[in-house]
Amino acid sequence: MTQEISRATAEEIAAAVSAGKLSAQAVTEAALAEIAARNKELNAFTNVTRDRALAKAKTLDAENTPRSLAGVPYAVKNLYDIEGLVTRAGSKINRDNPPAAADAFVVEKLDGAGAVLLGALDMDEYAYGFTGENVHDGNSLNPHDPRHMTGGSSGGSAAAVASGMAAFALGSDTNGSIRVPASLCGLFGLKPTYGRLSRRGVFPFVASLDHVGALARSARDLALVYDVMQGRDDADPAQAPRAVEPVLPLIEDSGAGLRIAVAGDYFRRGGRPECFAAVDAVAAALGATREVVLPAAAAARAAAFVITAAEGATFHLPRLRGRPQDFDAAVRDRLFAGAMIPAESLLRAQKLRAWFHRRVAALFEEVDIILTPATPCRAPLSGQKTIEIEGTEVTVRANLGIYTQPISFIGLPAVTVPLWTEGETLPIGVQVIGAPWREDLVLRVARDLEKKGIARAPLA
Amino acid sequence: MTQEISRATAEEIAAAVSAGKLSAQAVTEAALAEIAARNKELNAFTNVTRDRALAKAKTLDAENTPRSLAGVPYAVKNLYDIEGLVTRAGSKINRDNPPAAADAFVVEKLDGAGAVLLGALDMDEYAYGFTGENVHDGNSLNPHDPRHMTGGSSGGSAAAVASGMAAFALGSDTNGSIRVPASLCGLFGLKPTYGRLSRRGVFPFVASLDHVGALARSARDLALVYDVMQGRDDADPAQAPRAVEPVLPLIEDSGAGLRIAVAGDYFRRGGRPECFAAVDAVAAALGATREVVLPAAAAARAAAFVITAAEGATFHLPRLRGRPQDFDAAVRDRLFAGAMIPAESLLRAQKLRAWFHRRVAALFEEVDIILTPATPCRAPLSGQKTIEIEGTEVTVRANLGIYTQPISFIGLPAVTVPLWTEGETLPIGVQVIGAPWREDLVLRVARDLEKKGIARAPLA
Repeated sequence: MTQEISRATAEEIAAAVSAGKLSAQAVTEAALAEIAARNKELNAFTNVTRDRALAKAKTLDAENTPRSLAGVPYAVKNLYDIEGLVTRAGSKINRDNPPAAADAFVVEKLDGAGAVLLGALDMDEYAYGFTGENVHDGNSLNPHDPRHMTGGSSGGSAAAVASGMAAFALGSDTNGSIRVPASLCGLFGLKPTYGRLSRRGVFPFVASLDHVGALARSARDLALVYDVMQGRDDADPAQAPRAVEPVLPLIEDSGAGLRIAVAGDYFRRGGRPECFAAVDAVAAALGATREVVLPAAAAARAAAFVITAAEGATFHLPRLRGRPQDFDAAVRDRLFAGAMIPAESLLRAQKLRAWFHRRVAALFEEVDIILTPATPCRAPLSGQKTIEIEGTEVTVRANLGIYTQPISFIGLPAVTVPLWTEGETLPIGVQVIGAPWREDLVLRVARDLEKKGIARAPLA
Repeated sequence: MTQEISRATAEEIAAAVSAGKLSAQAVTEAALAEIAARNKELNAFTNVTRDRALAKAKTLDAENTPRSLAGVPYAVKNLYDIEGLVTRAGSKINRDNPPAAADAFVVEKLDGAGAVLLGALDMDEYAYGFTGENVHDGNSLNPHDPRHMTGGSSGGSAAAVASGMAAFALGSDTNGSIRVPASLCGLFGLKPTYGRLSRRGVFPFVASLDHVGALARSARDLALVYDVMQGRDDADPAQAPRAVEPVLPLIEDSGAGLRIAVAGDYFRRGGRPECFAAVDAVAAALGATREVVLPAAAAARAAAFVITAAEGATFHLPRLRGRPQDFDAAVRDRLFAGAMIPAESLLRAQKLRAWFHRRVAALFEEVDIILTPATPCRAPLSGQKTIEIEGTEVTVRANLGIYTQPISFIGLPAVTVPLWTEGETLPIGVQVIGAPWREDLVLRVARDLEKKGIARAPLA
């Protein structure tokens, strides 16, 4: 029974609970049992909110009202505020903060739709990493082969969903922190358009690049969860004043008719053959033969690094001054470097961002969807420092994000779709990218690939 | 005859020329005669484009077609491109550049409407100053009393219009460079909303703060010239994608019905009594009794300084490295200081700008117009370094912009309206500020004050 519930999608669970065929308490207990069985090995959860989950399930069963996420167990990266819990954001330092007084905006929304929060998830310290490794809380491990990393920074989020401990999870994505672990753990992962979802109650990293989003085992679940999280919130000044635009009703239309292109040049280099093969397989399934070039993508990625370091350092300066010894050394050193960047370099990076934004916006007058690899390789081993790419030994940590950074840099919506190759035990993802505010299209293509059997997210 | 034409408004000249009652050549010759008579003393023009002006006038007379600015003589700050002329931007360094290949966008527009360009005007070096003083070209002097400064950086623009050498002139405004000389020389001066008019062919200073605009001797002329300059131009990426919204047909409606407030706190301090008396006179004439407070205006001004220095230094870095000795020392030293600003300070200033923008936008839900002084004093003597304000000796150069800087910082449209006190030989301006894109309202209030006889711009 436990196993069966864990395999169910969010949509299936909500339907069964709403129809009274399954109790929210049974689902919650099954999820808690999965956590008890598997979390020790995978290290996905840093906090399990058992009492809250059981109380919520009990209330749902008593109310017996149909809800779009009725009884669906989920968890959130530990930078989301959970009332009564300290929001650690992967750090040691934040553990001295008072507990959160309220849930994050999107947690409120999910709870309102009947979802059951199970707890908080492991992440790279202050979201500044791509590996899912954490010196304070330990590394999250890949459910498909626990010798391997999850990718990060939303590593615990990916581990929880791929293993079936949660039906879906929230992550955050500044330079690739949802799309990278989705690729390495074989999940559908959505980073919406910059400014689409409220970040109230989410511990910041880089204000001009931070996005909230989700990981799930199906494209429909991802759309469902995204729709629930939409809503205007004046507390996040970066949120664009847009109406709620539900996408779930739209994504069963096939991708036919969409103008789909593969990104060339930069996005055809710097990766292992399997990442390009994955893009080719998706392109073939979609009948996409066109290629487009995002100009100066390498410079865009470099500029994303500069803005990340400068904004991140500015935000963390009081902690860098007061408690430098309590940071992960790798994070601290990059933040210190960021604190020494001159305004001139930042301005050049900002100028490049505006230029790149305009140039890529112009590309979207010609095409609807752009395909790139999500990561340059499958999941490296946990702790692995370098990887061979095109005959050169390069660092894992910096290179996992080479294909995601230029996209979040200009806030485009993107979904990672998971692909599997016969005989391989680990998946690899393809990034499906759309024009600003076209979450409907990227999810429609993800759903089409799922229906065609090209993209799939089997439970580990 | 010459004197009579010089006294005419742009609208009167265009009507007479369009009706065939006056030839464009006669107007142009009268303007050139005024320049010959007065420019030596006032030092407004750095280049007179005599041949171009006479050729244009001849063409207009031959075509004999009604045009909204038919035969109207004007001139532009010497940072506007004029085909065939080197765009010096008040500097020595730029004189080694090749001549401009084409006119600036707004110059094209004005010429297309029949205006006759007379030449280029003196300015503070690279627009980094508020006095109208220039070590290379000499100081522009105040037509109402040439012992006094014009204010700047569009100092030549103000001198040309206040003396009747031109019917109107273009300036540019980054922190107050139109509004300050309009106040000191007794003119109507418009700084439109940031992003409204194309800056193509205008030598930059601070990309995120630079505005083009105009100075004139009547509110109607200002509206007429502004309407001609409107138009979409993809060459200026900062220009907002807005339709042309002509305002001249709208401004004869009186200001009655508008919610007009005086800015309190910061904007009631730091100036000499005459600047507050001017605001009170305008408020009384408009029946404005309400007061609003722009929060943290002093911090906003400080942040405008930081952004100006950092962006200006980034733009000028090749010249600072290659030819430091050829700068005005005061400009060079501020730019060098700007080059040493850390990214952190810039980010804090940018964050404050976003916050201040939101807070002031909220004020405009309660009011339509905000009144402040344009400058803290009447025109100081040319070369005067300090001035006594509230019992303290403060520097002239930095303090002339205290009331304009916080407004351009967030791109609000503003008109300086000129006031005269019985017995005084020098005017002082009041700043009429509106919500973004409401040029119609600020010009309507300026026109109302003109009709009421409160604001007027007599020829010097």
